[in-house]
Amino acid sequence: MDYPQPVQNLITLVAKLPGIGKRSAERIALHLLKAGPETSRNLAQAILETKSKIHNCARCGSYTELDCCEICTGPHRDPSILCVVEGPNDILSLERTGSYTGVYHALMGRISPLNGIGPEQLRIAALVERVRQEQPAEVVLALGAEVESDATAHYVAEQLQPLGVPVTRIGLGLPAGSALEAADEVTLARALEGRRKL
Amino acid sequence: MDYPQPVQNLITLVAKLPGIGKRSAERIALHLLKAGPETSRNLAQAILETKSKIHNCARCGSYTELDCCEICTGPHRDPSILCVVEGPNDILSLERTGSYTGVYHALMGRISPLNGIGPEQLRIAALVERVRQEQPAEVVLALGAEVESDATAHYVAEQLQPLGVPVTRIGLGLPAGSALEAADEVTLARALEGRRKL
Repeated sequence: MDYPQPVQNLITLVAKLPGIGKRSAERIALHLLKAGPETSRNLAQAILETKSKIHNCARCGSYTELDCCEICTGPHRDPSILCVVEGPNDILSLERTGSYTGVYHALMGRISPLNGIGPEQLRIAALVERVRQEQPAEVVLALGAEVESDATAHYVAEQLQPLGVPVTRIGLGLPAGSALEAADEVTLARALEGRRKL
Repeated sequence: MDYPQPVQNLITLVAKLPGIGKRSAERIALHLLKAGPETSRNLAQAILETKSKIHNCARCGSYTELDCCEICTGPHRDPSILCVVEGPNDILSLERTGSYTGVYHALMGRISPLNGIGPEQLRIAALVERVRQEQPAEVVLALGAEVESDATAHYVAEQLQPLGVPVTRIGLGLPAGSALEAADEVTLARALEGRRKL
């Protein structure tokens, strides 16, 4: 006898989550079967609520429940430093370092010709327009160290050049070939400190 | 800035699942935020369906969508061998060995005075009544090797003695101090083979 169909279906879906194998998925399914119904109810509700209540900040793209996020509207944030990242997860990573007090702009991806993603699919035009209007003292490119991120960084720097704003890129500390998401707090904090002018 | 409240709530609940730490829970939450809404919808639905559609078989206690499970009613199962386990997860573990073709009876726990669980909280009276009616050729106690499981095994054997049915207990292979759930298939298969009369 194998697991009943609904249990098999649950195991399949749980095993697709990052970092969870077949055996862990089984343990989780059996844990939910054993626990009271409120455990399943609360978990399912949290999953649905997260997806329905959270969207991207209209200005910077970070995850928020508000129209405009707490970073963009925060009284202790310095709007004269604008940090460009690939996605909202990167904003969370940088916030956890505790060493950045400026504001953000998420491109919502990176240039990737193989996946059919060109500059026009990203929020690059919106960035240029924003820099033109807000005139920040510095734009920090906090993109990954991968080939596509490199290309994106250079493209963005090129687009910003006519505006005369100093553009830097985080450098020191980010291990080659890795995504920003995978770096630990210390590495990211050092990378922020060691940023250099492009 | 920390995660928005719904995301924090989701991370807390996911981190309570077995084998998942805080960091994995964060990765899972961010994965769900990034994925399409159908990913969250399907996962939440699978969690709720598993809990609502699956219940315990009225006869043996295993997980099933039916009133009486496919093991109890299966044409290829030998009703003359009755295997007593602590819970439905143990039935799944034994089924995975592929070396047992009899039927089951889950006690739904084990005697645990420290947790206020006495014989009357378990399905022991139901087991005695079932053995009296069905007159199996053998009752196999497939309980764990922990102290409380030991005590439960001896108590059950005592209750069945007046009925004259041979009672065996799985032995060879089950590592001391471990729960049945944690054993691998080979260990469990050997334990089944090496069962001895009490």
